[in-house]
Amino acid sequence: MLNFSFKNSTQIHFGEGQIKALSQAIPKESKVLVTYGGGSIKSNGVYDQVVDVLSEHTWFEFSGIEPNPKYETLMKAQDLIRQHDIDFLLAVGGGSVVDGTKFIAAAALFEGEDPWDFISKGQPINQALPIGCVLTLPATGSESNANSVVTRDGNKLPFQSPLVQPLFAVLDPSVTLSLSDRQISNGVIDAFVHIMEQYLTYSVNGKVQDRFAEGLLQTLIEEGPKALVAETKNDLDVRGNIMWAATMALNGLIGAGVPQDWSTHMIGHELTGAYGIDHARTLSIVLPAVMKVCAKEKREKLLQYAERIWNLTEGDDDSRISRATELTEQFFKTMQVPTRLSQVDLGETEIDGLIEKLTQHGMVKLGEQSIITPEVSREILMAAL
Amino acid sequence: MLNFSFKNSTQIHFGEGQIKALSQAIPKESKVLVTYGGGSIKSNGVYDQVVDVLSEHTWFEFSGIEPNPKYETLMKAQDLIRQHDIDFLLAVGGGSVVDGTKFIAAAALFEGEDPWDFISKGQPINQALPIGCVLTLPATGSESNANSVVTRDGNKLPFQSPLVQPLFAVLDPSVTLSLSDRQISNGVIDAFVHIMEQYLTYSVNGKVQDRFAEGLLQTLIEEGPKALVAETKNDLDVRGNIMWAATMALNGLIGAGVPQDWSTHMIGHELTGAYGIDHARTLSIVLPAVMKVCAKEKREKLLQYAERIWNLTEGDDDSRISRATELTEQFFKTMQVPTRLSQVDLGETEIDGLIEKLTQHGMVKLGEQSIITPEVSREILMAAL
Repeated sequence: MLNFSFKNSTQIHFGEGQIKALSQAIPKESKVLVTYGGGSIKSNGVYDQVVDVLSEHTWFEFSGIEPNPKYETLMKAQDLIRQHDIDFLLAVGGGSVVDGTKFIAAAALFEGEDPWDFISKGQPINQALPIGCVLTLPATGSESNANSVVTRDGNKLPFQSPLVQPLFAVLDPSVTLSLSDRQISNGVIDAFVHIMEQYLTYSVNGKVQDRFAEGLLQTLIEEGPKALVAETKNDLDVRGNIMWAATMALNGLIGAGVPQDWSTHMIGHELTGAYGIDHARTLSIVLPAVMKVCAKEKREKLLQYAERIWNLTEGDDDSRISRATELTEQFFKTMQVPTRLSQVDLGETEIDGLIEKLTQHGMVKLGEQSIITPEVSREILMAAL
Repeated sequence: MLNFSFKNSTQIHFGEGQIKALSQAIPKESKVLVTYGGGSIKSNGVYDQVVDVLSEHTWFEFSGIEPNPKYETLMKAQDLIRQHDIDFLLAVGGGSVVDGTKFIAAAALFEGEDPWDFISKGQPINQALPIGCVLTLPATGSESNANSVVTRDGNKLPFQSPLVQPLFAVLDPSVTLSLSDRQISNGVIDAFVHIMEQYLTYSVNGKVQDRFAEGLLQTLIEEGPKALVAETKNDLDVRGNIMWAATMALNGLIGAGVPQDWSTHMIGHELTGAYGIDHARTLSIVLPAVMKVCAKEKREKLLQYAERIWNLTEGDDDSRISRATELTEQFFKTMQVPTRLSQVDLGETEIDGLIEKLTQHGMVKLGEQSIITPEVSREILMAAL
């Protein structure tokens, strides 16, 4: 096992009706800015629940945080924050709203010239407004980690700071019942690939981490499809298991003390950047190809994955690995996401451009062993055709 | 799944050499009291490592915290704390040292007459000195939870407060290499039963919790015996996997959102109280008997445990359950702990006295369904003969 330091200080309030926890979780004297997205929280009743619970708080609102939240949008919140002396942010929404709110929190107290500098120039974040969140879409894990991704001028760039990690996250599975099948699918796939990026590397004999990762994968494989069929899609246990698995998938725990890959994400980002493909759907296309092209480097973990996740114990090593990759694709198909570039109308002619973008963005040594050069990324994209 | 609120704010510094993290983790201006037990940290080199790392801190020391730490011992630290304006406690040892230090931390700032009142009368703990710890024996989980057990006049009583949860815990597997086989065995069994108390109840369909609990059980079953045989006992991965599993076993995570039992612990406490049997060795005696006597109530989870932990898929339900119980006892035997009262020289004649103690201590409705009355406890003890 590798050495690590790990802490996760987000207070989780999990279960139906837990939105009521807001009234205690946010200090009474706070001036709260409720941040949200395009307004789905108004149609699904979450907005009304939040309004009810904040009846004794002073609060304002800022809406319009889009998927892949933009710098220009987020900076609009700054006037509101100054005008009303806002000292607490409550993000109500999915990963994009939480990510965007993290930027707003750090930007509000940034002492340099342009808050973008803490992303583009790595300037330190020395303070940030406290954040709480009500999660409406299980997927990204942003509700209990220190990470955020913000887009400016087409550049989708990450930053992180313990100061923007939410103090608390309300995870109420019942608020996910109004999600579309596509949102559910995307969320399950996003969480699944988060786990795989921290699991499918090389073994360092981190048995707890491996077992936890495998347990989360099994949970998503069992529960994900149930959230898409009529008989079980409204089962709160199904929704709850998916929600808790997605949070645990990227809260730092399963990645502590083990190598991490993230090449699928980096290659996938270029597909989103160039063609606007949903983030999760880029992952479901790229991951199986990474499993094929990097089968040699990932051999030991692929065999473990084949046995523990798909019960493959017969046949030679190569056939078990190839069957496990097939079954992964099969699961993705059951979750109604594409697994090939051709299914999103892309072909070989687009690959040169994608490789160029990867190179431009410095993504030239990807993977847990830094051996995924642009040429290997090309092989991966070819394998995903 | 049940509703829950969960947070774990202890910063873990895991791995060989992580004692060096102390120099940053404890504020430089602190006046530190290093607390420890009988002096094993002096013979195994941990004391010297701590002294080296604290070279720029002002620190004092308090030793002699015994197993099942006593109120009288712990109160002796209070003079030292006042005399030197101590404002930070560093516990260096196993679960008893950490538990005892938690009491010292809360007692130092207690505003009532006698600090024992926050245990015996449930008086609130409003403040406590900050605590860090260097764990030397993986077992209790006290290094990253808010719980403590302290003994006064033969009464072994628990208290808990988020204010006494350690701010950080150094988990360096190499410091466990000097432990005796008996200490290692006891630690593995303690952690194993902590997991079982949160797992072997009735199902609420908490899939992540179940998978995590099972993953920890599997880790201990695989790695525990290796720590007792010459070829593998000095393998730092073996020690590391046990250490991380023991911490995760009782940091609140696997018990969040699921029912909990704890009858094995409560019955076991009486065996320790009356006969001084090592805590873990009471658990290895009582748990198999609980599995037998409560097989009906725990049926669904026992079948799941049989299949997922012991790969038992053939035969009827009863035979799989009974085989799983046998295999659990077999594992305990491999770990060199007793599984029957007769092995610690106790017999039927002692049972009346134990039941009387349980009743005196209010332990009359134990278990996840509160149906383990003193009569059922008697059945359990009879089954453990």
